[in-house]
Amino acid sequence: MPAPRQVFVAVIGVGGVGTSFLTQLQSLSSKLSQSPSPVYLTTILLARSSKMLISESYRPLSLSDWSSALSASTTPLLSTSSLISFLSSAPERVVLIDNTSSSDLASSYPQFLAKGISIVTPNKKAFSSSLSLWDEIFSAAANGSGRGGYVFHESTVGAGLPVLSTLKDLVQTGDQVTRIEGVFSGTMSFLFNSFMPVGGGGGTFAAEVKKAKELGYTEPDPRDDLNGLDVARKLTILARLAGLKVDGPTSFPVQSLIPKELESVGSGDEFLARLGEFDDQMEKVKAEAAGQGKVVRFVGSIDVQKGDVKVGLESFETSHPIAALKGSDNIINFYTKRYGANPLIIQGAGAGADVTAMGVSSDLLKVLQLLH
Amino acid sequence: MPAPRQVFVAVIGVGGVGTSFLTQLQSLSSKLSQSPSPVYLTTILLARSSKMLISESYRPLSLSDWSSALSASTTPLLSTSSLISFLSSAPERVVLIDNTSSSDLASSYPQFLAKGISIVTPNKKAFSSSLSLWDEIFSAAANGSGRGGYVFHESTVGAGLPVLSTLKDLVQTGDQVTRIEGVFSGTMSFLFNSFMPVGGGGGTFAAEVKKAKELGYTEPDPRDDLNGLDVARKLTILARLAGLKVDGPTSFPVQSLIPKELESVGSGDEFLARLGEFDDQMEKVKAEAAGQGKVVRFVGSIDVQKGDVKVGLESFETSHPIAALKGSDNIINFYTKRYGANPLIIQGAGAGADVTAMGVSSDLLKVLQLLH
Repeated sequence: MPAPRQVFVAVIGVGGVGTSFLTQLQSLSSKLSQSPSPVYLTTILLARSSKMLISESYRPLSLSDWSSALSASTTPLLSTSSLISFLSSAPERVVLIDNTSSSDLASSYPQFLAKGISIVTPNKKAFSSSLSLWDEIFSAAANGSGRGGYVFHESTVGAGLPVLSTLKDLVQTGDQVTRIEGVFSGTMSFLFNSFMPVGGGGGTFAAEVKKAKELGYTEPDPRDDLNGLDVARKLTILARLAGLKVDGPTSFPVQSLIPKELESVGSGDEFLARLGEFDDQMEKVKAEAAGQGKVVRFVGSIDVQKGDVKVGLESFETSHPIAALKGSDNIINFYTKRYGANPLIIQGAGAGADVTAMGVSSDLLKVLQLLH
Repeated sequence: MPAPRQVFVAVIGVGGVGTSFLTQLQSLSSKLSQSPSPVYLTTILLARSSKMLISESYRPLSLSDWSSALSASTTPLLSTSSLISFLSSAPERVVLIDNTSSSDLASSYPQFLAKGISIVTPNKKAFSSSLSLWDEIFSAAANGSGRGGYVFHESTVGAGLPVLSTLKDLVQTGDQVTRIEGVFSGTMSFLFNSFMPVGGGGGTFAAEVKKAKELGYTEPDPRDDLNGLDVARKLTILARLAGLKVDGPTSFPVQSLIPKELESVGSGDEFLARLGEFDDQMEKVKAEAAGQGKVVRFVGSIDVQKGDVKVGLESFETSHPIAALKGSDNIINFYTKRYGANPLIIQGAGAGADVTAMGVSSDLLKVLQLLH
């Protein structure tokens, strides 16, 4: 029997996903410590944006009452450079779990990786911003072309759904991915499944946006969903993994559903109050699709051969799997040479704290296997 | 830069999947040898049931003209014990790729694993036979509770679709899988999508079986599909991964579509010639479903909480994703606590040489990552 292994974990971000992840981490730690080849996961840092709990001696922090302990902490979060220095001085391998949506932290991933620190994150920023950041990350990472830490980010697209792992498998085993198409936003899925359900019905667009907001399906300002940027970031990640050199989420056509006149009104509430003035535009789109026996959905698509990426409204036959989507589910269709006419489809909840945290936990397990 | 690594590969079975795999292996080998951390895949044995090519000195066999070379070989395949001895004496780590459907070879997996030989296979036999064989395999394997080689078998269910990896991720991250339901046979999918398409139509059952056979969708004797055993083997594997102690594919209810009177007629051709005599039975099933506005499909399901596994005909609303399946696609629905009311769905071609071989290649890449 080999000696038990210890791996250090630093967790930043304790919002919905972060909180869910911490629950999963506690049960994972317990299972791993009791497995035939035990691994001891030792949390040495836990932080929110403003403050942190830190174990300077690299002894385990207790997670049993992390929320009160973190609230009571008066220690400000280390600067990024001090954080890198603290983690890279640890006597065992370290995995940084970034459960924030911070661009700042994301822009430093290459430095973390170069120091041998592995990264697991649902944060889209690092992978959907400049192509140079992407290249720096994968030049440093051991699962890129570097010799540093490992980096996994399954939850950046489709939350816990096995989207990125499937795409990587297709590419690495030599299949030719020709097209990727799907509904990549739980908010947009819910909105259009309600606005134009198969079989007719649905309220006005403004009413459905209000309903989605009330049910907690949108960002506090729904324009942050309706501008299409979240979907554009996901498409950027997928396109890059499929081999396209996409500059960033604003380098291809993205249809915003925010009427021009409302782009700069002050608050989300004011936006919502006035959105109804523009219902005619969306009713026209709906009627046009209905006239062809189709329904409208907000989709992203990548034509890998042509190098075209786009995000926006499209119409689908009511028998199409994209039309038949339910609730706030995501659907991702991979068209490939091997799979032929019918795509490989992954479908299910693509948002939510528990399933997003599950993608993070599952990536953490992958890193632990590789760090042996 | 670390020294390049060498991993030995032994491939047994050169049927449809085996041939496809050898093509993928050549392109994988070339890519891996040129990667920043090169891995040299060296094939040291290539065999069909009766004979083999072997490199006793562990130098690479050339794969460029393997088919003629193997045909010309007069060396009989080593006995299993000699094979284990040859492979375990190799100076580098070895991966055995079993592209056969042999029970004999499968029953020796524990011995291969115990000697540190990893196994990758689409062969269902080892994982769907006795529970004791399953336990021996995972007691020996490094990705079980042992210290031997690694074992991966993604292609045993749904071919290259990420079915087993997804189920493992759900279980390992602590989700509670409550139910698994789907269409697990390309043959049965094609047959029922033709026999009772959504929207009406379809020929008699006997006519559709004949058509499926002519198109190459069935085994030479279609009874080998219609008896349900292939689906029962897949369900056995899924149920075990979900934590159920299933004794084997005959330990739960499996509906055979072979009329009792035709179970023992001599040949597949005679069976096909007489199947039409029993069309009334299937027409009755069809009419009953149609009367409820449903369609009939041949599905497998696992109720994890109750411990119930079953395989057979069931009726589905025409809007259900299982009803909407096309061609010979498989669909697998995972109902879990985290995913809630809408399942996590994986769908696409679940049979065919190229996609099955892809699952094997992708497993081989996983083993290579773990063997570093």
